[in-house]
Amino acid sequence: MSKGKSTSTAEVRKTSVQTQLKGLGTNVYDELDQGRFPSVTLSSRSVKNIVYDRKLQQFVLGKASVKRSAGNIKHIRPFTQLLWLAYFAKKLVDEKRTSTLRDVFYSAQAFNVEFQDQAESDELITDLEVLMQMAREGMNIYPEERSAIFGNMTIEYTVPGYEGKRADLSANPDGVMIGPALTTAEFADTDAEMVLAIEKGGLFTRFIEEKVHRKHKALLINTAGQPPRSTRYLIRRLNQELKLPVGILCDADPWGAHIAMVCKSGSANAAHLRELTTPDAVWLGVWASDIVKYKLPSDKLTEVDIKRLYELKADPRYTERMWHNELDTFLKIKRKSEQEAFARYGLSYIVDTYLPEKLEFMKSA
Amino acid sequence: MSKGKSTSTAEVRKTSVQTQLKGLGTNVYDELDQGRFPSVTLSSRSVKNIVYDRKLQQFVLGKASVKRSAGNIKHIRPFTQLLWLAYFAKKLVDEKRTSTLRDVFYSAQAFNVEFQDQAESDELITDLEVLMQMAREGMNIYPEERSAIFGNMTIEYTVPGYEGKRADLSANPDGVMIGPALTTAEFADTDAEMVLAIEKGGLFTRFIEEKVHRKHKALLINTAGQPPRSTRYLIRRLNQELKLPVGILCDADPWGAHIAMVCKSGSANAAHLRELTTPDAVWLGVWASDIVKYKLPSDKLTEVDIKRLYELKADPRYTERMWHNELDTFLKIKRKSEQEAFARYGLSYIVDTYLPEKLEFMKSA
Repeated sequence: MSKGKSTSTAEVRKTSVQTQLKGLGTNVYDELDQGRFPSVTLSSRSVKNIVYDRKLQQFVLGKASVKRSAGNIKHIRPFTQLLWLAYFAKKLVDEKRTSTLRDVFYSAQAFNVEFQDQAESDELITDLEVLMQMAREGMNIYPEERSAIFGNMTIEYTVPGYEGKRADLSANPDGVMIGPALTTAEFADTDAEMVLAIEKGGLFTRFIEEKVHRKHKALLINTAGQPPRSTRYLIRRLNQELKLPVGILCDADPWGAHIAMVCKSGSANAAHLRELTTPDAVWLGVWASDIVKYKLPSDKLTEVDIKRLYELKADPRYTERMWHNELDTFLKIKRKSEQEAFARYGLSYIVDTYLPEKLEFMKSA
Repeated sequence: MSKGKSTSTAEVRKTSVQTQLKGLGTNVYDELDQGRFPSVTLSSRSVKNIVYDRKLQQFVLGKASVKRSAGNIKHIRPFTQLLWLAYFAKKLVDEKRTSTLRDVFYSAQAFNVEFQDQAESDELITDLEVLMQMAREGMNIYPEERSAIFGNMTIEYTVPGYEGKRADLSANPDGVMIGPALTTAEFADTDAEMVLAIEKGGLFTRFIEEKVHRKHKALLINTAGQPPRSTRYLIRRLNQELKLPVGILCDADPWGAHIAMVCKSGSANAAHLRELTTPDAVWLGVWASDIVKYKLPSDKLTEVDIKRLYELKADPRYTERMWHNELDTFLKIKRKSEQEAFARYGLSYIVDTYLPEKLEFMKSA
């Protein structure tokens, strides 16, 4: 959608980010002009202020807030760091460039802004997210990690040099990386009827080889373990903008279950954000009860696995009966299994037998 | 290229794999028919038999060999496992399917072939590589890990359902995953004059944003840390089939240096293979001497880093003067640095200033 057409979602997003970041700077100047110490007030991210919202099905920040004022000598450092980050983010968006968290840390040195280490700059970037109520991806700051997508969908890129260029996500059978360009692309055309997010590259490739994308009109996403935030952002966009149901397939262990849960309900670390969760996403498996039902090859749970299961049982995100029952089943059978374990019945069993049963469940969920 | 055209490299490769695997089976039947216990003889992979070949610039296996015979009760288990693996690999190639190492482990159970754990099946797959003198990728067995490629090149896929389909590797600015399909694709058309392999996704994206692929006619590869074997295989193919020079950019620490070295000269683990190394590849940086020359932000070397540097100094792959000098410089300055550290001079400095100097070096190397 090049010139002459109506403004794209991506352009609207960009303008809104610029306006918000500029607003922050303007407020500081206004306060200075009026002879006051400039300050910002943002929601507190302390553990006490992270609460689970059952309606949103995610963690949110409570009512407590913190103020950072240039008038307080203890605040001057984080206040300056925050303003520089906002300045840098605005520059990135203006210049249509992206940056990694690591780049941000080093870039500060060019401005004589001091961060002790990347942990400190990451912390302040999160503060900026809280203040702007916006994911850092919207401010062109991305993590290193990538995952991949494949399926019958045409997207239209919005990044510089690619504005309006279309790409077919089924053109490369190993999948296309999900990075800054794909995350901000428009969904131009698709006949997909669902999204299947898969924990591991091996099964992702198996699904492509077995033509799951055609048989079930599915967009396939390789989350490559716990999906990077930009991948969760993309999954949400597919769910919200295209109304596609989302199913998640992981290993049958507490870590796999939690990958599905974080896709669905987000993490405590991102309690200040709404755009990374997909509350309607459905955990398709591999469940603890599947280990029993399908007589899967399995391993004994380790001490660490068991400790983690008890943590999850106490987690407010896991109150739904079905999730809770599966955690109990893990503890009862004391076994875990992997997606690849279905290969025990031949390489196509998981696609021919297991997946159709799970898709039936997805429809009813 | 589809029907009617001359046989593609991929088809030749496939037929040769099938012939070799079938040959193994035929030999076993012949021995049985002649009333003898069937056996196989393969090069020994014991540490004593791994030697560095200065001419090939890589580790190779020496003259020692081991025999596995069905007539020896101790050999029956590994002999059976090896034959089953060859049978399974042949089936994969015949059916044009791929499998991960993990899949292989579980698939064995469908045939009542026992592997104690994946470590054991991985070991036997390596034995099969030694016996066949062929990388497992050629037998359609792939690892989980992926990296990505971007640049002005048209490839032609050879995997089922995609035979003859072309894809433009500059169509997706986040890059295309390097998996089984890309690794086996034909290089149909490119004006690229070099390959740049980059350790980290952040810099890979920076290079794309700053149009390095156009300015320097470069194919860009994100190795995502130590490149998976299939990525090293692809880099070698680009170097050998298209005669493209290869430059490697990593972090300035012993681990980064070793990523460059493994791309160039391979690993001891793969001493039995030739198709994973690119002896002409050039380590472009970031060198220890670059930390000094460019006054890069840096961190103190840890105990582990220092120990690793002494290991590398004793490694036969590092005898070339230039490599040795850089190891000494690390030990002298006791500092390490990262690719992103150049952001200290602005985000485009690494592309505008550092890269051109390195490409000059590459020409002279």
